[in-house]
Amino acid sequence: MPPSVATFSGGSVLLAWQLKDKTVLIVGGGDVASGRIESVLVADAFITLVAPSTGLHPLTRKYLTESDRITYHDRMFAGPQDLDNVDMVLTAIDDVEKSREICAMCRERRIPVNVADIPPSCDFYFGSQIRSGPLQIMISTNGQSPKLANIIRRKIEEALPEHAGEAVEKVGELRNKLRTRAPGVGGELGKRRMRWMVDVCNAWDIEDLAALDGDLMNRLLDDGWEKNKVPKPEDIGSGKRRHSAVLSPSSSLSGSALPLAIGFIAGIAATAAILLAPTRR
Amino acid sequence: MPPSVATFSGGSVLLAWQLKDKTVLIVGGGDVASGRIESVLVADAFITLVAPSTGLHPLTRKYLTESDRITYHDRMFAGPQDLDNVDMVLTAIDDVEKSREICAMCRERRIPVNVADIPPSCDFYFGSQIRSGPLQIMISTNGQSPKLANIIRRKIEEALPEHAGEAVEKVGELRNKLRTRAPGVGGELGKRRMRWMVDVCNAWDIEDLAALDGDLMNRLLDDGWEKNKVPKPEDIGSGKRRHSAVLSPSSSLSGSALPLAIGFIAGIAATAAILLAPTRR
Repeated sequence: MPPSVATFSGGSVLLAWQLKDKTVLIVGGGDVASGRIESVLVADAFITLVAPSTGLHPLTRKYLTESDRITYHDRMFAGPQDLDNVDMVLTAIDDVEKSREICAMCRERRIPVNVADIPPSCDFYFGSQIRSGPLQIMISTNGQSPKLANIIRRKIEEALPEHAGEAVEKVGELRNKLRTRAPGVGGELGKRRMRWMVDVCNAWDIEDLAALDGDLMNRLLDDGWEKNKVPKPEDIGSGKRRHSAVLSPSSSLSGSALPLAIGFIAGIAATAAILLAPTRR
Repeated sequence: MPPSVATFSGGSVLLAWQLKDKTVLIVGGGDVASGRIESVLVADAFITLVAPSTGLHPLTRKYLTESDRITYHDRMFAGPQDLDNVDMVLTAIDDVEKSREICAMCRERRIPVNVADIPPSCDFYFGSQIRSGPLQIMISTNGQSPKLANIIRRKIEEALPEHAGEAVEKVGELRNKLRTRAPGVGGELGKRRMRWMVDVCNAWDIEDLAALDGDLMNRLLDDGWEKNKVPKPEDIGSGKRRHSAVLSPSSSLSGSALPLAIGFIAGIAATAAILLAPTRR
């Protein structure tokens, strides 16, 4: 049954915002600002950072030294001219008055803005996040409980298949190789390409996808795409990753293996107790 | 060790965009558009829907009937006047030319826009999403593999603690009750409130948080907050949910219970085989 409209409420629209080569103004250089810098660099943006050098967090300093995408001004926010050619504004300063002023200027100019710790001055919030290569996951409790968001994030991290980020990366590469081999936009070929990629993702598990390298991809395309089928990993000489994962001590007792072992031992104990017990009859 | 800036690349900025009482223009009424309507209603936005009634998806029709937040125009996109007082634009139509035109108009007006299936005409993407009350989770593969995003979403759904959404809701209520009891913004009291909430979230598991009701919250505040400690669920007469979860047939064989049971049976079989086997010696 389709969901009822009555339950659609109280949330946000979760978005993957694109910032490649856009400019983000970050006001403030402390702890929160350093997290913002990381989030924004991940999206390949340019950053203009405005903050007195006396208040810079060690991580902010590190990013300033290491990244060539940050233009740094050792001063306070100077006024509306700081907003010229800016695509997004993030402030993380203690001055509530100044923060609200910056927010108002941004809204006048329709520049998306987030003011740390002042929800009404935010067009958007940052949730709790996981990143593994091109795979990104956000957990938002819509302001109800940032702590629970973190707890749930950790549970998701634990449950996430090992190498999930790598698998995403490899599938992206495989898709590009397929597009080079069978080029063209839309139409029947496009649909066949999409179907084959979906079939591969369904048939292979994440570990095997992550283990793909250039040679294996070529073999998969030769023996799979060209023959209109989906070979198994072992059919094209793969499956290495699966073995190493099973042998890895860190994963061998995780997931269902530990309860399996406990159950097995309990089963032995119970049966032995019954069979070895002195018979009363 | 802090992460290296060199690894910060190829991603998006994941955001929880706020749309409460804002207006979103949706152009198109098909399958994709119906999904957009749901996403946007969740965020308590108003929708202006522009689409000929001949092409409406059944879900779109359903939402139109059930929601009083959608203003519907049975026609095609008419021109720039359709963008007046609009805070976000989502298009999902087959006409690529028209889509690009709408995108250009939006960018001129600095209105955030997403054009389905034309990545360069998108300021943001929608990832694969999970929603449970105020808890929202987005999985983005940054366009590398929507299929893998879905597979990973299902794995996360399976791993998510039961009642996680309810727990988030209840913790939000508890925080509001605490704020009423000990009001004030910032300062020492604000810090103490935050610390106590964090301690509760750390000490209680998700099932127990989800089982909180008004009475239990009051007891938790009386015996916990007022006495500067964190009682256990059983100390305030809770723990019901935990029992019902264990007894629930739908959850009793999920997680680690199934391997435990399989292990137990295997243990019985193995021990019985050994003990009941005819002795050779």
